[in-house]
Amino acid sequence: MSRKTVVIVGAGFGGLAAVRALKGADVDVVLIDRTNHHLFQPLLYQVATAALSPADIATAARTLLRGQANVTVLMGEVTGVDPGTKSVRLKHGPDQAYDVLILATGAAYSFFGHPEWADHAEVLKSLDDALTIRGKLLAAFERAERADDPEQARRLTTFVVVGAGPTGVETAGTIAEMARMTLRDEFRRIDPTRARVILFEAGPRVLSAFPEDLSAYAESALRELGVEVRTGVAVEAISDGVVRAGGETVEAAAVLWSAGVQARPVGTWLGALSAPNGAVVVDAHCAVPGLEDVYAIGDVASYHQAGKPLPGLAPVAKQQGQWVGRLIRARLEGRPDPAPFRYRDWGTMAVIGRSRAVALLGPWKIKGFVAWLAWSLVHLMLLIDFRSRVAVYVNWTWAWFTLGRGARLLTRLP
Amino acid sequence: MSRKTVVIVGAGFGGLAAVRALKGADVDVVLIDRTNHHLFQPLLYQVATAALSPADIATAARTLLRGQANVTVLMGEVTGVDPGTKSVRLKHGPDQAYDVLILATGAAYSFFGHPEWADHAEVLKSLDDALTIRGKLLAAFERAERADDPEQARRLTTFVVVGAGPTGVETAGTIAEMARMTLRDEFRRIDPTRARVILFEAGPRVLSAFPEDLSAYAESALRELGVEVRTGVAVEAISDGVVRAGGETVEAAAVLWSAGVQARPVGTWLGALSAPNGAVVVDAHCAVPGLEDVYAIGDVASYHQAGKPLPGLAPVAKQQGQWVGRLIRARLEGRPDPAPFRYRDWGTMAVIGRSRAVALLGPWKIKGFVAWLAWSLVHLMLLIDFRSRVAVYVNWTWAWFTLGRGARLLTRLP
Repeated sequence: MSRKTVVIVGAGFGGLAAVRALKGADVDVVLIDRTNHHLFQPLLYQVATAALSPADIATAARTLLRGQANVTVLMGEVTGVDPGTKSVRLKHGPDQAYDVLILATGAAYSFFGHPEWADHAEVLKSLDDALTIRGKLLAAFERAERADDPEQARRLTTFVVVGAGPTGVETAGTIAEMARMTLRDEFRRIDPTRARVILFEAGPRVLSAFPEDLSAYAESALRELGVEVRTGVAVEAISDGVVRAGGETVEAAAVLWSAGVQARPVGTWLGALSAPNGAVVVDAHCAVPGLEDVYAIGDVASYHQAGKPLPGLAPVAKQQGQWVGRLIRARLEGRPDPAPFRYRDWGTMAVIGRSRAVALLGPWKIKGFVAWLAWSLVHLMLLIDFRSRVAVYVNWTWAWFTLGRGARLLTRLP
Repeated sequence: MSRKTVVIVGAGFGGLAAVRALKGADVDVVLIDRTNHHLFQPLLYQVATAALSPADIATAARTLLRGQANVTVLMGEVTGVDPGTKSVRLKHGPDQAYDVLILATGAAYSFFGHPEWADHAEVLKSLDDALTIRGKLLAAFERAERADDPEQARRLTTFVVVGAGPTGVETAGTIAEMARMTLRDEFRRIDPTRARVILFEAGPRVLSAFPEDLSAYAESALRELGVEVRTGVAVEAISDGVVRAGGETVEAAAVLWSAGVQARPVGTWLGALSAPNGAVVVDAHCAVPGLEDVYAIGDVASYHQAGKPLPGLAPVAKQQGQWVGRLIRARLEGRPDPAPFRYRDWGTMAVIGRSRAVALLGPWKIKGFVAWLAWSLVHLMLLIDFRSRVAVYVNWTWAWFTLGRGARLLTRLP
């Protein structure tokens, strides 16, 4: 029997965990990703707000997997799967055959049936997204400084964030802080501390996945940073630089969208059952029912535990990737399947500005500086390779003490 | 008498030195640059070869000048100068009036009467340029790894550098080193150590500004790194991915051009006399003859000392900027002019790979590891703000010991 090929699509937390679980196994692993890097998404908002550089939170997948001899990394875009011939279609280059397929392609943002809003709002999923947002934020202040008209300068320093989940809260808080602290003494014609950051949330409170008292704390912390929080207000329309929500019309230099999440179209590729958010429904083995040797993990999979779908969080993807890797390995080596997958929830956190956070760790609710310290430590430790850790640590420490942002680079006005 | 306005165009070494020389002076200083940052150009090749991130070698001009209250920084593109009304035309926004004007707009590359080559060759002047080159280099290896055909893979890992001045030598050496050391264990289908780097130089030797023995050392060091050095070979044609030179036709994944330098078109703006390289001819005060209160410094100026034009080096720009700033200040404050400008040549250096360099320091010629140590120290100290120094130091030290490159990021295949 020839050596089998495990194809893993997506080098995010799930895909990478699966690859690593197959280290030393007697298989050929092929990891395919549209980019060449693994991205530490939880800190992506810090690239978007100029605190960190792309290289601080991303490392080439080849480098991470250099020591794992059974892995071939391919940079390429998967456009479909043919479960009949057991192959993956690539946009450029020949099809890639698989014996076992793990789909870990993650999720994108959805605009609730308004795809046209995508032209006028930025999302934060990739390094490119983060650099686009960084460019828009920095350019807005540059344009305001050279504007003739105070009304125009006002409009140019107004920012709208839609959706008050962790990403929305982190981004809104950080933009407000950047304007009030980092930029405060650097302009002569405008006052950056008067910049407006408006956070719209259709639900009744921010961070709805957290208990109510933590939501209330987060909201008051955001207000203290100067963010205008509008809960219970759904966005009605987004056009170029204008947002209409709750009867209010806001002119803004940038609109950041962090409201709805939609899995990548794997269900369509497979002709398999998808949940309303587009995630492909998987069984207790993370396998796609009705197909042979096809698994889906992380945000692209809809996995039910205790009757509820698991949330779209990095630890879910990671644990599923590890588990599926172990399952495949056990079956290859003729051992019994591992104990059924069970997501272990170690807790969730969200950060608000440079020294506050909320954290839900099992029965414990933590908030304020202690939660922020916990958040910093956990994220530093999670960062995958040592080099990133050192650079991020230097940048963070420096930024924390100087209120500075090291990556404030604009090569042209976008 | 109302406060006078000194407009400085260009936030490079010259412009920034002039701004700083006017610290505390009773004038309004307006610094205009097309980007928002000061760029430490001598290390730009390290961004192009993925060793450093943009933020390691660039800092927002506003941040650098935050503490200098008489400075307004404007991000904008100057499209012309009207010496009659004493104003500067901006692409966006109203004209900017000046009492004194300092032009420090630097130089661009020229293609020796073949502007069409610009479409097929990359130059290295800005952060955008460096990221474009980085993308092309990294993408070439990614494409080669998924190529079907060994001939195609060979073509995809061939790189041409034109011009063996310091930038060409640094870039060629670093690409060869990256292929042979950093990438060597990270690919499964291709052997990156077999990548070709070909350096064409029309003149008889590399680094022609250095003494012959240092040139000879540099050439042998380049060959040891695996660079194919072709001196005395002028490029005859560049089309898409194909270079013809000295009867040879090379198919390459990227062509990097570092051969000819052309000053930005300031002479044309001013209707003033320009040298053959486009630099505006200035007098012993760095002033443009025939115009009132207009100075030109750095690469955009043609300044003769002891009958010879000064070279296009950062120290020249810096010293001229300081001197002109002092001159303006003295005149404003009714003091006598400072002693006439005289360029002090502290020496020149060029680096070849990760542990060799050549340096000419007055009468001393140094080469090898000692020269490299001197080069590292000087460049570290020259880096403008402390934060950059720390980050660069961390990145360098890490890269030196691990042979790694931290900024190997590709978000799509360009």
